[in-house]
Amino acid sequence: MNSLIVRTPEIFREKQGIDARILQRVVDLNLSEKRVQVEHTETGKTGWESFDQLLIATGALPIRPNIPGVNARGVYALNTLQSGIEARKAIDHGSPKNIVIVGGGYIGLEMAESFITRGLDVSIIEKTAQVMTTLDPDMGSLVAQVLQDAGAKIYLNESLKGLEMHGGQVRAVITDKQTLPADLVVLALGVYPNSALAAKAGIPTGEKGAIKVNKRMETEVQGVWAAGNCVESFHLVSRRPFYIALGTVANKQGRVAGINIAGGSALFPGVVGTATAKIWTVEVARTGLLENEVQQMGLSYASSRIEGRTRAGYYPGTGRITVKILAEKGTGRLIGGQIVGVEGAAKRIDVLAAALHGGFTVEEMVNLDLGYSPPFSPVWDPVLIAARQAVGLV
Amino acid sequence: MNSLIVRTPEIFREKQGIDARILQRVVDLNLSEKRVQVEHTETGKTGWESFDQLLIATGALPIRPNIPGVNARGVYALNTLQSGIEARKAIDHGSPKNIVIVGGGYIGLEMAESFITRGLDVSIIEKTAQVMTTLDPDMGSLVAQVLQDAGAKIYLNESLKGLEMHGGQVRAVITDKQTLPADLVVLALGVYPNSALAAKAGIPTGEKGAIKVNKRMETEVQGVWAAGNCVESFHLVSRRPFYIALGTVANKQGRVAGINIAGGSALFPGVVGTATAKIWTVEVARTGLLENEVQQMGLSYASSRIEGRTRAGYYPGTGRITVKILAEKGTGRLIGGQIVGVEGAAKRIDVLAAALHGGFTVEEMVNLDLGYSPPFSPVWDPVLIAARQAVGLV
Repeated sequence: MNSLIVRTPEIFREKQGIDARILQRVVDLNLSEKRVQVEHTETGKTGWESFDQLLIATGALPIRPNIPGVNARGVYALNTLQSGIEARKAIDHGSPKNIVIVGGGYIGLEMAESFITRGLDVSIIEKTAQVMTTLDPDMGSLVAQVLQDAGAKIYLNESLKGLEMHGGQVRAVITDKQTLPADLVVLALGVYPNSALAAKAGIPTGEKGAIKVNKRMETEVQGVWAAGNCVESFHLVSRRPFYIALGTVANKQGRVAGINIAGGSALFPGVVGTATAKIWTVEVARTGLLENEVQQMGLSYASSRIEGRTRAGYYPGTGRITVKILAEKGTGRLIGGQIVGVEGAAKRIDVLAAALHGGFTVEEMVNLDLGYSPPFSPVWDPVLIAARQAVGLV
Repeated sequence: MNSLIVRTPEIFREKQGIDARILQRVVDLNLSEKRVQVEHTETGKTGWESFDQLLIATGALPIRPNIPGVNARGVYALNTLQSGIEARKAIDHGSPKNIVIVGGGYIGLEMAESFITRGLDVSIIEKTAQVMTTLDPDMGSLVAQVLQDAGAKIYLNESLKGLEMHGGQVRAVITDKQTLPADLVVLALGVYPNSALAAKAGIPTGEKGAIKVNKRMETEVQGVWAAGNCVESFHLVSRRPFYIALGTVANKQGRVAGINIAGGSALFPGVVGTATAKIWTVEVARTGLLENEVQQMGLSYASSRIEGRTRAGYYPGTGRITVKILAEKGTGRLIGGQIVGVEGAAKRIDVLAAALHGGFTVEEMVNLDLGYSPPFSPVWDPVLIAARQAVGLV
């Protein structure tokens, strides 16, 4: 568990000269007087602290539906280390048998993997027509298949209506179609920006309520900065505001905010929507736009999907990889990529992400001088095979 | 072994309508009369074949020094499938004990891995001051260390002078410093373009004698094309002609030549010098220019080398990765990258390769939206950490 704590308050103090005060919740911002009201989370005592520059890094909060039983024992959002520790304890000592996961996104499916590994009975409820809506349906179904083969039950187009309790402990999940017995429930319904405090103080918010920032990570209020899962990002492919809650994006934004607050100069230009996950035996990755996003933008596009191998066909450990890319018709510009495959598949998304940053066309991609050696790749990397196929379609 | 043959003559004929004639060696080109002289390699019979378009794809040949004993039994260049089969047989049935590898490049070190795996005694002789001269000395020494830890003996700054034979069979390797007992010798001294036939016919050659081609893969003689390890490439970073003999580059060039010969239109813009290899327990990769190449060009540059992890620090299977990048001072433009690390390290070179194709600066690289998830990467990919460190140096 300690290995999951990147830095303790002591390390912050001793190594970086940062006074990291824990158990203190900021409950109000007074921007005109440049001070924040702080409440001690254990004693309840409050006080005011003044600032010259303010960084808001309040992150995201899990979506918790307002339904009966949502606060029952045995219901976890797994958004904090503490929540994870408690869920782990419940599994280790409470011997639950039936696990219901509500939400078929990254967190839900990654948790499904953990529960399957523990030999538990896993059901996943997803309100849309596919799991992993961060992928196109055809790619998402590859992930669903892998979990189903591992024994998970997946219920699509089904909505959470309530939780049944017994003595304060959850015992079933009620959907619009059925009642599923449940000893432990994971609510993996996604997150939303924790921006209420900022919004209340008059700091403008945008997409999904996330705090608006410029490329320096400064809000629309001078001297007030924001970074991480509470801020709006700019999508470099759609050229539109975009909300994404990912640790790696948050970290990069934090660096830029820190440099600027300290008097330096750095810009965070935006994101291309890259994300990866390991789900049971497959690696999953995506970047750029999905088909439905491209359609909503009214772009004319071609899609190319290929089945390849992660290593040379004769090399031990070679396995399947499916690569799908979307490219704009006319210009041939790459606009999105998705990957599902065995070990070695996911990080290939990075080439597609770099290509999106560079505005490469699929024709330019075909001749990318990528690393080849039988232990790592076929002579044509699967990503390039997908690009090669797309060349004929754009 | 059959899995190493990509296509048989039958597949070429039946699936692709290509008349692939084997056991036929072209011994002369008559460009003015548009015909080639062909000799049957078994019968010795010759004849002339006429052509409309000619593609020269004669590949590369291994460098074989003109020294005593070079043709002894037990000496292998391993440049053909047949040579590999014979070496394998010699090991399986001849029970050699002492293996001497001459040349510390990819082939030499990859073979060292194979021999170590078989429990044989391996010595590597290298005439320069480091193995893996495709890396900077500091990165090459990481690879040398891994092989030495595995039991291989490496002799640097030592030149091959001759081979001692007994009854036609090699029994020792003579260098300028010592005599090493040898039951099997691998000559891994690199390759040179097999362009003699083309040069004799008056087709212009350039770098290291490789055939000059334009971006359409056409030689300076109209209607005569060339592709693969017999041609000169253009280096997109140094903007100079460059000779590189790699399967993946050859394959891409072949595609471009084929499209153009068939009346289509495609260009091969050039290479950035990417190469990868697995050597015993480490993965090795490089792209762009080395320090000595940058120095020869007279560029002012900064170098950044970092030690990172392939996965999140707490994730099972995480391991060491060293990333080194070179960037031009002033512009901040990336000009080269090298990686040595455990599983998952090598293919990270692809991001650096794409960045070279895109002409990215290290500042632009820092914010690349690469895939993050604990099984695949730390929050900051090691490649980005190297770029981040370089930002302060350029």
